Amino acid sequence: MRAFTMTDIIRKKRLGEALTDAEIDFVVSGAVDGSVPDYQLSALLMAICFQGMTPRETATLTLAMAKSGETVDLSPVGGVTVDKHSTGGVGDKTSLVIVPAAAACGVKIAKMSGRGLGHTGGTVDKLESIPGTRTDLSREEFLSVVRKTGCAVIGQSGNLCPADKKLYALRDVTATVESVPLIASSIMSKKIAAGSDCILLDVKTGSGAFMKTLPEAETLAREMVRIGKDVGRRTVALITDMDRPLGYAVGNALEILEVCETLQGRGPADLTAECVELAANMIVLGGKAPDVETGREMVRAALQNGAAFQKFCEMIAAQGGDVSYLREPGKFALGAVQKTVAAPASGFVTRVAAEEIGLASVGLGAGRETVGESVDFGAGTLLHKNRGDLVTAGEPLATLFTSDAARLPAAEKRVRAAFAIGPAKPAEQPLILARIE
Amino acid sequence: MRAFTMTDIIRKKRLGEALTDAEIDFVVSGAVDGSVPDYQLSALLMAICFQGMTPRETATLTLAMAKSGETVDLSPVGGVTVDKHSTGGVGDKTSLVIVPAAAACGVKIAKMSGRGLGHTGGTVDKLESIPGTRTDLSREEFLSVVRKTGCAVIGQSGNLCPADKKLYALRDVTATVESVPLIASSIMSKKIAAGSDCILLDVKTGSGAFMKTLPEAETLAREMVRIGKDVGRRTVALITDMDRPLGYAVGNALEILEVCETLQGRGPADLTAECVELAANMIVLGGKAPDVETGREMVRAALQNGAAFQKFCEMIAAQGGDVSYLREPGKFALGAVQKTVAAPASGFVTRVAAEEIGLASVGLGAGRETVGESVDFGAGTLLHKNRGDLVTAGEPLATLFTSDAARLPAAEKRVRAAFAIGPAKPAEQPLILARIE
Repeated sequence: MRAFTMTDIIRKKRLGEALTDAEIDFVVSGAVDGSVPDYQLSALLMAICFQGMTPRETATLTLAMAKSGETVDLSPVGGVTVDKHSTGGVGDKTSLVIVPAAAACGVKIAKMSGRGLGHTGGTVDKLESIPGTRTDLSREEFLSVVRKTGCAVIGQSGNLCPADKKLYALRDVTATVESVPLIASSIMSKKIAAGSDCILLDVKTGSGAFMKTLPEAETLAREMVRIGKDVGRRTVALITDMDRPLGYAVGNALEILEVCETLQGRGPADLTAECVELAANMIVLGGKAPDVETGREMVRAALQNGAAFQKFCEMIAAQGGDVSYLREPGKFALGAVQKTVAAPASGFVTRVAAEEIGLASVGLGAGRETVGESVDFGAGTLLHKNRGDLVTAGEPLATLFTSDAARLPAAEKRVRAAFAIGPAKPAEQPLILARIE
Repeated sequence: MRAFTMTDIIRKKRLGEALTDAEIDFVVSGAVDGSVPDYQLSALLMAICFQGMTPRETATLTLAMAKSGETVDLSPVGGVTVDKHSTGGVGDKTSLVIVPAAAACGVKIAKMSGRGLGHTGGTVDKLESIPGTRTDLSREEFLSVVRKTGCAVIGQSGNLCPADKKLYALRDVTATVESVPLIASSIMSKKIAAGSDCILLDVKTGSGAFMKTLPEAETLAREMVRIGKDVGRRTVALITDMDRPLGYAVGNALEILEVCETLQGRGPADLTAECVELAANMIVLGGKAPDVETGREMVRAALQNGAAFQKFCEMIAAQGGDVSYLREPGKFALGAVQKTVAAPASGFVTRVAAEEIGLASVGLGAGRETVGESVDFGAGTLLHKNRGDLVTAGEPLATLFTSDAARLPAAEKRVRAAFAIGPAKPAEQPLILARIE
């Protein structure tokens, strides 16, 4: 006979009491084996939205979800492994810059990434826009690429954290996504199952991010850093700005072109600066630099001297990709239907609404609205101006790419609406808003 | 295309906003036709537990549930019809006294009742302990009995308020029962579907009731009275004490014996007083007395002059029951296994824990722990002493009846534990705690 029932557990949480480890394990294993029905899980999730969870409960939930499926043993890689997670943004191609850049500085990175959904893109889609690149490597292939090149980026294994998969799908349809302990445990469970010793978190905030304000982003970051510590993983979080798109390219092949430029020291200033900061922190976490400033210098050198780009080419080649595309970017087939949006007035760009640019790009075919849709790698938006830039009336603000002309009008409308032009240069907004460890 | 989605509705309620009539209708019809899955309904129910509902929302939910299935048209009965609902108690046989008593005073009563569940009994089970009595009359038979005798009591129709049935079943397994607007709308939806013009509510409070404290009971009573008014039904609530069992008999046939005594003016003082008050209010609601005091006098007369008992016999006969059992109570087959519990000390009975006596009686076979179990009509507990009575050590406190000796020890233990005896007479506790209209 069971010591407790699901109804008792739900009632306890509804009344604001903390659940025991045994109760949380009961819920998580019941979610996976189906013995706890969805209607009880969703009632509990809603009660958690109202009552929250203690640090102990959150850590227990995270570990239980991490252990609910396959877990990755990275010990064959050797050395300290470092993982990175971004809460997702528009034009956020940092992973593809910092993974090879940090690897070029000696850090071991075995990273699993997601696909794009909603207004944000996904690293796996971006990688797959390089012809031949495989993101479905077997466990052995994955570890072998990391051993050989120091890094690899693949899609998330199907059996990683089935409990999180189950709970996340339920949260999505029961309006219980917006709960800090639930978001934090969902992200951290996957990172813990993925096996790295250290975790760098890029928590984005602003209009294009899930966390719209800095305090919200800080709360989430602190919760995740605490979970990491509670379960014995060195974890650092940077809170970064996502009020406007990062860099100028939004869309899979378009972003790979910008990644290649950045890896060769010729990238946009904002993207380069953010990548330097993120990679420097990975290098410190991985024990390859004594402090962040040393890390920054190492990353800058790797971007300037070609080592980072060289590492990216090695990784792509090891994952089956055609590296000639990286060396001759003209080979990428961008959307044949193109449209340039011109500035309606002269002045400073005071706003580029990141979420709108993201949704426009999805509308052009670069992303997906629901899980499982296919993606048009050549579609997207190439900005010519970003926040703070000076512009003359008639000058191009952005070029839209798609393979389907019917998708153009709605996207064009969104892109136009995303820009605001005014007489005064907007105040500089720092890219890195906080560092939490 | 729908104007809104269930996820939006859940989110709105989670954020504390009021739902529109259209949104509530969408939820209720989706609950009945299955288009809204259980996991979304339970998330919404939990959000309602935290955020409550406005009077408008509660009235809309009540009406939507009332209209979700069959509704009873009592107009063929003629005159003003009055219904009565009790929130359930231990030894609560008032319906079977007040329905014939009020009918004897000219009130029309077409009542649907429930079966016992948990520690409380149900009127339908009690009626069925009279051999031959049918509680499954067709709609035509039901109305014809009311037309002929002025009253009838049957089981709730299977298709009454399917939305409430669905939501109640979910609430039961998701710890979302304890929400005043949900409890109130559940009760009132069934009363409204049952078609009477006026509704008398008996809201019980105390250790043997669902609402343990007077303020909780008052809140629920006010909510139900307001719903009644909002949907155009004259509604009055009495809050009555259920700290100790009502009368001395707990168990189906045992209670029918006590009902017959009370209907002939020989019942226990507490039960009689409460029935007079309830029936008087029904008489006022039904327009057969100008005020409650006049109603009380009419009820007392009907109990004394045999009119109330005569009406009960007519109703039972019209529903197929063998009235000879009512006239010769010795014919009832009580549980052959009997056990008397004696007072362990002399003094005043300071407590008779109603819930414990109820559970002991269920344990003896008089009730059911889960829906659908059969009931032993002859089982139950006959108290010889109730709260406030003086007792000498060794004197009988209660006699237990069952047909299964194996059920005796656990029940005996419960009954012993239910009694407390002390040196001082406990303060008189009023039976009628409040009247809300």
